[in-house]
Amino acid sequence: MHIPDATVARLPVYLRCLAMRTGTGTCSSEDLARTAGVNAAQVRKDLSLVGAQGVRGVGYEVNALRAEIRQALGLTHDFPVVIVGAGNLGRALASYGGFGEWGFSIAAILDVDARRIGGAIGGTTVQALTDLETVVDERDIEIGIIATPSSQAQAVGERLAAAGVRSILNFAPTVVRVDEAEVRVVDLSTELQILAYHLQKSALEQ
Amino acid sequence: MHIPDATVARLPVYLRCLAMRTGTGTCSSEDLARTAGVNAAQVRKDLSLVGAQGVRGVGYEVNALRAEIRQALGLTHDFPVVIVGAGNLGRALASYGGFGEWGFSIAAILDVDARRIGGAIGGTTVQALTDLETVVDERDIEIGIIATPSSQAQAVGERLAAAGVRSILNFAPTVVRVDEAEVRVVDLSTELQILAYHLQKSALEQ
Repeated sequence: MHIPDATVARLPVYLRCLAMRTGTGTCSSEDLARTAGVNAAQVRKDLSLVGAQGVRGVGYEVNALRAEIRQALGLTHDFPVVIVGAGNLGRALASYGGFGEWGFSIAAILDVDARRIGGAIGGTTVQALTDLETVVDERDIEIGIIATPSSQAQAVGERLAAAGVRSILNFAPTVVRVDEAEVRVVDLSTELQILAYHLQKSALEQ
Repeated sequence: MHIPDATVARLPVYLRCLAMRTGTGTCSSEDLARTAGVNAAQVRKDLSLVGAQGVRGVGYEVNALRAEIRQALGLTHDFPVVIVGAGNLGRALASYGGFGEWGFSIAAILDVDARRIGGAIGGTTVQALTDLETVVDERDIEIGIIATPSSQAQAVGERLAAAGVRSILNFAPTVVRVDEAEVRVVDLSTELQILAYHLQKSALEQ
């Protein structure tokens, strides 16, 4: 079944809400709506698209709903990920506690800096960027994360795509365009800007 | 004028698209729509809420549009930010190139680890967490970033709120609830989950 992109973008948010509810038997669409910041009708519509039906007055069974969303998102097998860049951001991502839960494993970390190569980050040894093609091939890597300085991001994106990586997550604060792969941008300042708006609004209302 | 939350969430995305267009005189709603991943009618509706009117067949004047969005988001003055946690993630955020452009400055970085305190990250000296209340008061800090291990996040959130911080951005992969401040969560795995969905879908279509 085709799931609209806007719903796909909300499903991870519902999963995160459900992850906070370990031990709870059921949760209502109102609960999910409040935590996810949408309305309850939207939640019910989104969840019906993944085949989940709540019970009126009771809600959704938490474990079953998690399984259905994970299935819809394709999180039923392990995704090996390569991180390019072993600076602060690459190190932070490699040791980030939120990835493993969803089936993402850090298969390799690459860098160009000889002082970083050979060092270990969270159990993974940093390899030379020259190993990129070999690593992607041997480990069947389909997802790459760019955590390099902005100046290197485009070149790394092209190289990942040429090696066969089909999905790229770009954390460098710059544009990366490659035709052969889907590139998504994570701009760490977006949420700060939203906070700034709410700060300004509440200041005006006082 | 009240701007709906969904529009507020898209405005930073438009700003990011515009930032990629430095030097370009105008841009169309179709251009912005493609880069932001929404439809052009939505872009025009969002931009009319911030008072921007495009010219049919020409588009929006880039510099004027940036100024109008920045004004609407309240990005017209500098926001001092405190980062709690000087580990990999805190260091990455402190040296992230994407914040300064939007008027966010790292006023202070705090940690509990004596080996980190006194060290410099991007020109800012790491201070002891015991300085939190003093720093927030002296620097008029309204935005705090939690970049601690999950186990410390809730306690840090409560302390930030008690010190008078009204907006908190939580990067720890856990829930932080405080009544006195607005807390937004940045889950670094959300975009990975969306990528995984698209990978799975294209595999099924082949």
